[in-house]
Amino acid sequence: MLINCAAYQDGKKLADISVADISNYVGRPDCFVWVALRDATEAELATMQQEFGLHELAIEDARHGHQRPKVEEYGDTLFAVVHTIEFGATDELRVGEVNIFVGRNFILSVRNRSTQHLLGVRERAEHEPHLLRHGAGYVFYALMDAVVDRYFPIIDALEGELESIEGQIFVRGSARANIEHLYELKRRIMTVRHAVTPLMESASKLWSGRVPGVCEGSREYFRDVYDHLVRINGTLDSLRDTIGTAIQVNLSMVTIEESETTKQLAAWAGIFAVATAFAGIWGMNFEHMPELKWRFGYPMALGTIVVACTLLYRRFKRLGWV
Amino acid sequence: MLINCAAYQDGKKLADISVADISNYVGRPDCFVWVALRDATEAELATMQQEFGLHELAIEDARHGHQRPKVEEYGDTLFAVVHTIEFGATDELRVGEVNIFVGRNFILSVRNRSTQHLLGVRERAEHEPHLLRHGAGYVFYALMDAVVDRYFPIIDALEGELESIEGQIFVRGSARANIEHLYELKRRIMTVRHAVTPLMESASKLWSGRVPGVCEGSREYFRDVYDHLVRINGTLDSLRDTIGTAIQVNLSMVTIEESETTKQLAAWAGIFAVATAFAGIWGMNFEHMPELKWRFGYPMALGTIVVACTLLYRRFKRLGWV
Amino acid sequence: MLINCAAYQDGKKLADISVADISNYVGRPDCFVWVALRDATEAELATMQQEFGLHELAIEDARHGHQRPKVEEYGDTLFAVVHTIEFGATDELRVGEVNIFVGRNFILSVRNRSTQHLLGVRERAEHEPHLLRHGAGYVFYALMDAVVDRYFPIIDALEGELESIEGQIFVRGSARANIEHLYELKRRIMTVRHAVTPLMESASKLWSGRVPGVCEGSREYFRDVYDHLVRINGTLDSLRDTIGTAIQVNLSMVTIEESETTKQLAAWAGIFAVATAFAGIWGMNFEHMPELKWRFGYPMALGTIVVACTLLYRRFKRLGWV
Amino acid sequence: MLINCAAYQDGKKLADISVADISNYVGRPDCFVWVALRDATEAELATMQQEFGLHELAIEDARHGHQRPKVEEYGDTLFAVVHTIEFGATDELRVGEVNIFVGRNFILSVRNRSTQHLLGVRERAEHEPHLLRHGAGYVFYALMDAVVDRYFPIIDALEGELESIEGQIFVRGSARANIEHLYELKRRIMTVRHAVTPLMESASKLWSGRVPGVCEGSREYFRDVYDHLVRINGTLDSLRDTIGTAIQVNLSMVTIEESETTKQLAAWAGIFAVATAFAGIWGMNFEHMPELKWRFGYPMALGTIVVACTLLYRRFKRLGWV
Amino acid sequence: MLINCAAYQDGKKLADISVADISNYVGRPDCFVWVALRDATEAELATMQQEFGLHELAIEDARHGHQRPKVEEYGDTLFAVVHTIEFGATDELRVGEVNIFVGRNFILSVRNRSTQHLLGVRERAEHEPHLLRHGAGYVFYALMDAVVDRYFPIIDALEGELESIEGQIFVRGSARANIEHLYELKRRIMTVRHAVTPLMESASKLWSGRVPGVCEGSREYFRDVYDHLVRINGTLDSLRDTIGTAIQVNLSMVTIEESETTKQLAAWAGIFAVATAFAGIWGMNFEHMPELKWRFGYPMALGTIVVACTLLYRRFKRLGWV
Repeated sequence: MLINCAAYQDGKKLADISVADISNYVGRPDCFVWVALRDATEAELATMQQEFGLHELAIEDARHGHQRPKVEEYGDTLFAVVHTIEFGATDELRVGEVNIFVGRNFILSVRNRSTQHLLGVRERAEHEPHLLRHGAGYVFYALMDAVVDRYFPIIDALEGELESIEGQIFVRGSARANIEHLYELKRRIMTVRHAVTPLMESASKLWSGRVPGVCEGSREYFRDVYDHLVRINGTLDSLRDTIGTAIQVNLSMVTIEESETTKQLAAWAGIFAVATAFAGIWGMNFEHMPELKWRFGYPMALGTIVVACTLLYRRFKRLGWV
Repeated sequence: MLINCAAYQDGKKLADISVADISNYVGRPDCFVWVALRDATEAELATMQQEFGLHELAIEDARHGHQRPKVEEYGDTLFAVVHTIEFGATDELRVGEVNIFVGRNFILSVRNRSTQHLLGVRERAEHEPHLLRHGAGYVFYALMDAVVDRYFPIIDALEGELESIEGQIFVRGSARANIEHLYELKRRIMTVRHAVTPLMESASKLWSGRVPGVCEGSREYFRDVYDHLVRINGTLDSLRDTIGTAIQVNLSMVTIEESETTKQLAAWAGIFAVATAFAGIWGMNFEHMPELKWRFGYPMALGTIVVACTLLYRRFKRLGWV
Repeated sequence: MLINCAAYQDGKKLADISVADISNYVGRPDCFVWVALRDATEAELATMQQEFGLHELAIEDARHGHQRPKVEEYGDTLFAVVHTIEFGATDELRVGEVNIFVGRNFILSVRNRSTQHLLGVRERAEHEPHLLRHGAGYVFYALMDAVVDRYFPIIDALEGELESIEGQIFVRGSARANIEHLYELKRRIMTVRHAVTPLMESASKLWSGRVPGVCEGSREYFRDVYDHLVRINGTLDSLRDTIGTAIQVNLSMVTIEESETTKQLAAWAGIFAVATAFAGIWGMNFEHMPELKWRFGYPMALGTIVVACTLLYRRFKRLGWV
Repeated sequence: MLINCAAYQDGKKLADISVADISNYVGRPDCFVWVALRDATEAELATMQQEFGLHELAIEDARHGHQRPKVEEYGDTLFAVVHTIEFGATDELRVGEVNIFVGRNFILSVRNRSTQHLLGVRERAEHEPHLLRHGAGYVFYALMDAVVDRYFPIIDALEGELESIEGQIFVRGSARANIEHLYELKRRIMTVRHAVTPLMESASKLWSGRVPGVCEGSREYFRDVYDHLVRINGTLDSLRDTIGTAIQVNLSMVTIEESETTKQLAAWAGIFAVATAFAGIWGMNFEHMPELKWRFGYPMALGTIVVACTLLYRRFKRLGWV
Repeated sequence: MLINCAAYQDGKKLADISVADISNYVGRPDCFVWVALRDATEAELATMQQEFGLHELAIEDARHGHQRPKVEEYGDTLFAVVHTIEFGATDELRVGEVNIFVGRNFILSVRNRSTQHLLGVRERAEHEPHLLRHGAGYVFYALMDAVVDRYFPIIDALEGELESIEGQIFVRGSARANIEHLYELKRRIMTVRHAVTPLMESASKLWSGRVPGVCEGSREYFRDVYDHLVRINGTLDSLRDTIGTAIQVNLSMVTIEESETTKQLAAWAGIFAVATAFAGIWGMNFEHMPELKWRFGYPMALGTIVVACTLLYRRFKRLGWV
C-alpha cells in the first residue's frame, strides 16, 4: 500500500507526485524522491524496482521478508533491512521489518508487519530544511534513527522486568516462578538482540572507513545511530549476563531452601523419634518394671518425655534448624 | 556415475556432449562445460582430472570425502566442498557432500552420499539465459545456493523440536525426557554447524576483498549466499545458547521438584509421627494412668490425635507443603 | 551553573573572563579558554554551542545525559563523555557524568549529577605552567586523569568487599548471606564496568594510531590514562571471574552442607529406629516371652538398647556422620 | 643417534653420505641434504649446528625439548617443533617431539621420545621424484603431513570413547563412572589440543601472506596440512563442548535419580508410617476400646491396615513414585 | 639502594663507576652504562632521572610501584615493568616488581619488593662478550629472560598442586577440602596470570612489526622470551580450564555421594520400619489374637521379623543401596 510519495529539492518539498512521475524527478540532479510503502504487494515492488532500477536480489529479500538486519551496497544503491519491535496485545514482542532502498536521488521505505508508522519522520524532516538539504542519505539516517529510538522503551521494559524478578529472587518459595520469568525474559532479550546486533555491525560501515557515497555527508549522524546501537547492545549484554547469574543464584537459593527444609525435617523427626522411643520403652511388657507401679510414674514419664523433647528443641533452635 | 555433461555458450546449451569431447569445448573462449557426477569412481575422477587439469590434492580430497566445507584456490581453479544435510529414515541427520570444481570454462560437481539431486539447478539455469551468460561462476553460485537453501527446513525442524521441548520444560516429572531430548538436539545442531560455519567463512572470500576471477561477475550473488549462511549460523548460535540455558533451567526444575517432594515428605512424616507418638504414650503400661479408665477415654484419645494431625495438616497446607 | 571561566596563554592564566568575552579570546592564536559548568541549563548549553561552534549532536548528547562514555571527533573538536562514580549515602554507587568539549583554543567541561568537583585540577594545572603550556589538550588529559584516579578507591572498596565475602565462603550456614552479597557485588562491578570499558576503548584512540590534532602533544599522557583504565579493567575482569567461581563454590558448599545434614539425619534416625524397634519387640503381647518374666529382664532390655545404640553411634562417629 | 643422511639432486638420491661430507653437498646450488636423527645427543646437535649454521636459540630449544609446537624463522632457515602423539602401553597418551630445521639446501629432523619412525616418508618421497624435485620445502611438508596424519586415529579413538560414555549417560547408577571417564577424556583432549592448536597457528604462516622462501613452491601442500589441522582442531572443539554438556547432563541425571529415590523413600516411609500408626492406636491400653473385644477385631484390624497401605501404594504407583 | 653501576664497551666491562660519572660514559657512542638499584628511594630515582633524562611519567610509575607489566616507549627510551613471583614463608605467592629503563647507551633496573637478585644475569653476561656486544638491548633481554625463567618453577608447583587435588577428587568425603584447595589454586593462578598475560602482549611488540630501535639487534632473543611467555600463558589457560571442570566435577561427586547416602538412609529406614510395624501389630491389644497364645508364637514372630528384614536387606544389597 502506498503511503506517500513526494519529490524534494533544496531541503523543501516540491510536490506530492504520482508513482508514474517518479522517473521524471529521479532524473533531475538536485532533486530526490521519497516514497513510503506499507506491506507492499508484489506488483508495487515490481513497479518500484523498475522506477528506481533496484537489484533483483534486494527486491527478492524485500518480497520474502524475515531477513536479518543488514545494510548492503548494490552499486550506488544501498539496501537496508531494519527490524521494528513492539509489544503485542498480550505483552509478547512482535517483530516487524522496514526495508529501505537509498540511491543518490531517491529513498524508498517498505514497512512490513509493524503498526508503528514513520510519518513523524517525514513531518520533522520537512520542518528542518537545513538538514533535509543533505538529501536521501539524511532521510535514510532519520528513518534508522526513528526505528532505533523506539528500541529504548523496549529495553527499559526488559530492564524493569529483570528488576522486578531480582526483587523476588531472595524471597522464599518463589523459585519456580522466578525461573520461568527469567527464561521468558531471556527469550525476549534474544529477540531484541537479533534486531540490534547485526544492525550495529552494518551501521558501523556507514560512518567509519570507506563510507557509501550517499551517506558521506551524514557521517556524524550515522555515528550517532551507531552509538545508540552500541549502547543498546551493551545493555542487552549486561541483561544477558545478569540473567545467567540470576538463574545460577536462583538454583543456589533453591538448594539452600531445600537444605533448610531438610534440617527442619531432621529436627522434628528427631524430637518425635525421642518421644516415641521413650513411650516404646515404657510400653514394654516386662513384669519387673518398678516405675510402672509408682503412683506418679505416669506424670514422671510424661515429664521426662517433655523435658527431653524441649532440650532437643532448644538445641535445634540454637542451631537455627527450627 | 555420470549424470550429465553439456556445453553452454552465451547463456544457452550448445549440446549434451560425451566426456571425450570435453577438451574440445573447454578450449573455446566463450564456451563452458558443465559436468555432474554422482558417487564418482576413481576412474571417473581420474578422467576429469585429466580433462580439466585439476590439482592432485583437490582430487585426493574429492576421492577421500569427509572433508570439512571449504573453498580453495588452485591457480585459476576453485575447489569447493559443500555439505548436504537431510533427515534419514529414522529421523537422524545424514550428511552428504558436494565437491565442486570451477574454472573459467568449466564446472564439475561431484555429489556423494546424498539423495538430494541437483537437476533442478540446471533446469532453472537453462531457463534464465541472461543469468547463465555470467558463465561457470554463476553456475557455481546456483549450486551453492541450492544446497544452502535446503538447510532452512532442517533449521526450522530443529527450532520446532526446541519449542516442543520448551513446552515441556516447566511440566512436572518431565525432566528426564527433557534432558535426553535437549542433549540429542544439541548433537544435531553441532552436526549442522559443522556444515555451516566453515562454509560461511569460506564463502566470505567469494564476495569481499580480493575475489577469485571466476566469481568476479557474480559477487552480489555470493554475498546473498553468504548472507543466508550468516543468518543460519546466527540461528544455530541462538539455539545452542538456548539449549544451554534450557539444560540449566531443567536442572533447576528438578531441584525445585525435589525440594517440593522433600517438603511433602517432611509434612506427612510429621503428621504420622505425631499420631504414633500419642498412641505410644497411651500404650505405656503404667498402673496409674487415670484416662485409661475413663469411659470415653478411647474416643477422647482418637479425637486428640485427629485434632493434632488436622492442625498440623492445616499448617502445612498454609505453608504450601502438602 | 557556571563555575568558572578563564583565559590562559603560555601556561599562565590571563584573566577570569565573562562568558560574553569568550569569542574574543578564542580567536587569538596562542590563547585558550577554559570553562567549567555544573548541571548546565539548556540556555547555558546554547550559549556555549554558539561561542565555541559546537556540533548539534554533541550538544544534544550533553543535554540528554545518560550517554555511554566515549570520545568523538566533530571536525577539529573533540567531544568526550566520562562517568564519575561515587558512593551514595547508603553505600550504593551513584554515577554522574562529565561532558568535555575540546578544541584547539578552548576546553569546556560540564559536570552533571556528581558531587565531586574538579577545582583541584585547575589549581594544580595553574601551578605547573610548563605543562599547562601544552594547551587545551593537556587540560583535557588532566580532567580525564582526575576522574579516572577516583575510580581506584571504588575498585579497592569492591575488592575489599569480595575479600570479606571470601572470608565467609567456607563458613557453615553463611551461604544465603554470601550469595546475596555476591549478587549485589556483581551488580556494582557491572556499574563500574559500564564506566570503564567504553572509556578505555575510546582512550586508546587518543594516543595510538592517528591521534586527534589537539591531543598530539600529550600522547604520552593519554597513554598513561589509558594504562590506568586497562589496569582497572583487568581488575574488574578478575573480580567478575572470581565472583563467578565464588557463586559456584558457594553452591558446592551448600550441597556439601546439605549432604552432611542428610548424613547426620540418617545417623540419628537410625539410632532411634533401633531403640524403637527393640522396644516394640518387647512390647508385643505374646504369652510365652520368657525374658519378660526374668527378674532383671527390664534392665537387660534397657542395657541391650543402650549398647546397640552406642555401637551404632560409634560407627557413625567413625564415618564422620555425627 | 643418526638414522640416515643422504644428498638429493633433481628429485633423486645422489648418495648416502657421511656427516663429515655434509658441508660439501650443502654448498652445491641444486642439491639438498636430508639428515634424520633420533634422540640426538648434545654432540650430534653441536655438529649439526656447525654443518648447517643453525641458530643458537633453535639448537637450545631442540636440546631442552618440551617446547610448544611452532614454526620460527631464523634468517633463511626455518625451525619447526611438531608433537607426535601415540598411545602408551597402558592406554595413556604419550607425547614426543620432532624438531625440524629447514634451509634452502638441507633438511634436518630430530625425533625425540617417540616410537613412531618417519622412514616411510623418505621412502615414499624417493618414489616420487617429480615431487621431491621441489626440494627441502617439500620434504618439510612431507614430514609434517606424516606426523599430522597420525593424529587422525588418535582423534577417532577419543571420539569413540566419548560415544561409549554417551551410551552410558542416561543409564541409572552409572553417574560416578561416567564423570570419571569424562574427566579423563577431557584431559586427553587437552593433551592433543596442546599439540594441534599452536601448530595450526604456525602452519597458517606457511601458505598465506608472506611465506618463507623455502616453502614458496609448496604453498598448496602446506595449505593442505593446515586444512587437516583446522579439521582436527574443529573436532577437538566439538569434543570439548560436548564433554562440557555431558558433565552438566550427568549432574542433572544424578539429581533426577536422587529425586526419584527421595520420592520412593517418601512413599514407602508413608506406607509403613500408616501401618505403625494404626497398630499403635490399637496397642493403646484404654479399658473401653470395644473393638478389642470383637471376635473378628484382629482380622478387621489387619484388614484395615492392609487396605489403607494398599490404597496408599496405588496412589504412589499412579504418581510414579514407587 | 645502589647495587652496582658499571660501564661496558665492546662487550667488556670498562670499570665500576660512580653515579656521578654516569653522564660522562653515557655520552660516548660505543659505550653503555648498566645500573642496578634495589628498593630505590625517591632521591635515587631523581638522580637517575637526571642522569639518563628519563620521562616524568615513567619515573612516577617506578616510584608508585604496583603497575601492571608493560613495555612503553618514551621517545628513544623504553620503560618496562616486569613482575617477579616467589613463594613466601607460608607458601603464599609474593609479587615483586622490576622496573627497567633502556636507552641506546644505558640500562637501569630497579628491583622492588623481591628477594630474588639478578646478579647472576650480570655475571653470565660478562662471560659472554660476543653477546654483550649487542649492547643495552641485549642486557634488557637478559634481565627479562631471567625473570621469566623463574616463572617456570612456580608454574610447575601450581601444576603439581592441581595434580594432587585431582588425585583426591574421586575420593569419598574429600569434597570440602577439594573445593577449598581448588579455590585457593584458582586465586594463585590469577596472580600469576596478572604477571604473565600483559607482559606477553607487550613483549610481542619487541620482535614483530615495528621494533624499538634499541631491541632491533636482539629480535630473535625477544621472540624467544615471548615464546616462553606464550607457553606459560597456555599452561595457565589449561590450568584455569581444568580447575573450572574440576569444581564442576567435584560438585557432581558431592551430589552423587549425597544420592548414595540418601539411598542408604532409605534402605535402613525401610528395614527398621518393617520391624517396627510387625512389632506394632503383635503389640495390639485385641482379645482374640490366636498366635499370641501359641507356644512358639514369640520365636515365630522374631523369626518372621528377621526373615522380612533379611529379604529386604538382600534386595537393597542387590540394588547397591547398602
